[in-house]
Amino acid sequence: MTATLNPTTAAEATTVLGLGVYRPSIVVDNEQICQWIDSSDEWIRQRTGIVTRRRAPADVSVVDMAEGAAAEALKDAGIEGSQVDSVIVSTVTHPFMTPSAAADLAHRIGATPAAAFDISAACAGYCYGIAQADALVRSGHAEHVLVVGVEKLSDIIDNHERSISFLLGDGAGAVVVGPSSTPGIAASVIGSNGEKWDAVSMDSSLLRLRDALFDAHTSGDATTLLDQEQRWWPTLRQDGQTVFRWAVWEMAKVAGEALDKAGISADDLSAFVPHQANIRIIDELSKQLKLPEHVLVGRDIVDAGNTSAASIPLALHRLRAENPEISGGLALQIGFGAGLVYGAQVIRIP
Amino acid sequence: MTATLNPTTAAEATTVLGLGVYRPSIVVDNEQICQWIDSSDEWIRQRTGIVTRRRAPADVSVVDMAEGAAAEALKDAGIEGSQVDSVIVSTVTHPFMTPSAAADLAHRIGATPAAAFDISAACAGYCYGIAQADALVRSGHAEHVLVVGVEKLSDIIDNHERSISFLLGDGAGAVVVGPSSTPGIAASVIGSNGEKWDAVSMDSSLLRLRDALFDAHTSGDATTLLDQEQRWWPTLRQDGQTVFRWAVWEMAKVAGEALDKAGISADDLSAFVPHQANIRIIDELSKQLKLPEHVLVGRDIVDAGNTSAASIPLALHRLRAENPEISGGLALQIGFGAGLVYGAQVIRIP
Ligand SMILES: CC(C)(COP(=O)(O)OP(=O)(O)OC[C@H]1O[C@@H](n2cnc3c(N)ncnc32)[C@H](O)[C@@H]1OP(=O)(O)O)[C@@H](O)C(=O)NCCC(=O)NCCS
Ligand SMILES: CC(C)(COP(=O)(O)OP(=O)(O)OC[C@H]1O[C@@H](n2cnc3c(N)ncnc32)[C@H](O)[C@@H]1OP(=O)(O)O)[C@@H](O)C(=O)NCCC(=O)NCCS
Repeated sequence: MTATLNPTTAAEATTVLGLGVYRPSIVVDNEQICQWIDSSDEWIRQRTGIVTRRRAPADVSVVDMAEGAAAEALKDAGIEGSQVDSVIVSTVTHPFMTPSAAADLAHRIGATPAAAFDISAACAGYCYGIAQADALVRSGHAEHVLVVGVEKLSDIIDNHERSISFLLGDGAGAVVVGPSSTPGIAASVIGSNGEKWDAVSMDSSLLRLRDALFDAHTSGDATTLLDQEQRWWPTLRQDGQTVFRWAVWEMAKVAGEALDKAGISADDLSAFVPHQANIRIIDELSKQLKLPEHVLVGRDIVDAGNTSAASIPLALHRLRAENPEISGGLALQIGFGAGLVYGAQVIRIP
Repeated sequence: MTATLNPTTAAEATTVLGLGVYRPSIVVDNEQICQWIDSSDEWIRQRTGIVTRRRAPADVSVVDMAEGAAAEALKDAGIEGSQVDSVIVSTVTHPFMTPSAAADLAHRIGATPAAAFDISAACAGYCYGIAQADALVRSGHAEHVLVVGVEKLSDIIDNHERSISFLLGDGAGAVVVGPSSTPGIAASVIGSNGEKWDAVSMDSSLLRLRDALFDAHTSGDATTLLDQEQRWWPTLRQDGQTVFRWAVWEMAKVAGEALDKAGISADDLSAFVPHQANIRIIDELSKQLKLPEHVLVGRDIVDAGNTSAASIPLALHRLRAENPEISGGLALQIGFGAGLVYGAQVIRIP
């Protein structure tokens, strides 16, 4: 009863070693969207900034996209899959309750027996993943953590739904987090406001569909299942204005807190990479943060749409591809979404 | 570009401060099971050790059960919900793709704006959660982390399925992890073997059900949906022998590794609390670990069945209730399941 436990050893600091993405092949423009909902190309561009979003075909899964992004991130980091000892996949669109996407991905990249788990934190999931990767490395649980944000939102949305579906796209982004002699990932600000659990959510429980199916089996009558108005397949919906206001007001504070925790000011940044939810939110946050001219702002939403957990690494990847000089500079990234949940931190760009 | 980031501060060590559970009200005995599958009370007792398993009624959700367990864990830890700054819910049965159960739970216990996220690591999810909670506290991301393992497996199983459903039950267990001057949570062993991704898994993708539903909508004919042989609602199934062998051989090594990492031997333990998958696995692991007589072994499976992520805290809770003297002693806990994934660590019993 009196035995003591070994203290655990830990790395001093962490950094992002590499970055990769997967952009699926199908381009969906606003004209296509307007065949599904009452809207216009002009309205969508003006109110959201979105010109196109991308979708993966039926035979490309969440894990396939994750694998594509992971392969590039590993290459960018200069390490092999076998050197990864933890795999974190942030997703809300893996279509199996269990096992996780991460266990499959770990195997595919040759990382077995890496720790592997999925996390559910919606559009904040990538920043939550970075915080956890940093924590795992700094507490000695891991050396190289692969963090993937991946979504195949086209699988769960209803194209005819008008509050959110037109915003959403598919994609994946991945980074490798590893030990560093100087801090390359600053302290994170991660939090939630569950009072607004309903502001962005599925419109019904999966159990509603199950019960309707079982009732049909029992009665031998499937008429209700044919009623399309019932939207049996749960789809995402949102109260756009609630989310918009919350994002603009509360997230500006969270972003400011992340700068404070990092001990830097907006002047020190090379890039600002917020979740790609709406160009007006991006612009408003940039304004409130008083970003100087030289800070590049992620605006991948224009042709990628809102890809939830994938949007920040996708946007950072594009910024770096178009402006290679930002590599080595600092980026402030902030994710926010269904829960409501949020996460932000300053990282050094790989 | 040359600004440096603040180093992050961290706690030296962590411990489990409190423990709570929720045991749902409905008791399902083997006689009931045998009305669903070709089996016998004797076979089930002999081959698995299970006499009864519990189920929650339709109006008790995953979050409700989590809340019940959390309330007791907070009380046991002597802290308020408002002192919790991270909530991790390990579950594979929350019936919404998003938002997470954790965001709702954080709000319900008054922990807002705590970080909140769900993790998917099946029956290893509780041990994965402990590892992450330890990492979050030791890296300065959190002070008090609520870790909940909760499952309502009765929602996703098919009672007539014979490979796994008869083993499974519903329930929740929760702990509070916080800082400590001496280590109360030793280094974890967490890993995966995704090559065996299919050994325990859902028998089909949710998208198969969606496609069948949409095809019915398009054709106006729901006949295929009425075909019960098709098992449209995805259910859990397993290759029992593969899992059994893997659990017995590989998990004995993982458990041994966790003892080594803690710097203790089996003699130093007060309790051994493996995932409650099968009494024969529990006995075999105990034998291979050469546990001395005084080490109490969790055998909650007898009347709780296999509750996946909830099974370890449920079993530990019972052991402590029946043997209060183990409080302050050391427990070796090990979870393993779909992925395949596993996690183990030695903790000091609160
Ligand atoms: C969804 C969103 C683009 C809607 O824009 P908005 O300016 O708030 O629009 P409102 O809901 O106030 O509606 C304004 C008008 O546009 C119309 N409208 C709403 N959606 C529309 C659409 N898809 N196409 C065309 N018109 C639309 C409304 O009917 C309303 O018309 P009215 O004035 O005639 O009644 C915006 O609220 C938003 O981006 N919210 C946050 C999104 C977000 O971050 N989600 C988080 C997911 S992570
Ligand atoms: C599922 C499990 C109890 C089956 O026990 P087992 O001893 O491996 O059984 P087998 O699959 O080898 O089958 C042996 C016999 O029992 C029968 N059997 C299988 N399931 C049965 C059931 N539910 N009731 C009655 N008989 C059953 C088989 O048909 C077979 O009969 P046969 O010899 O006439 O062909 C056992 O494999 C197990 O517990 N596996 C691991 C479970 C686990 O940890 N799962 C992880 C979830 S986290």
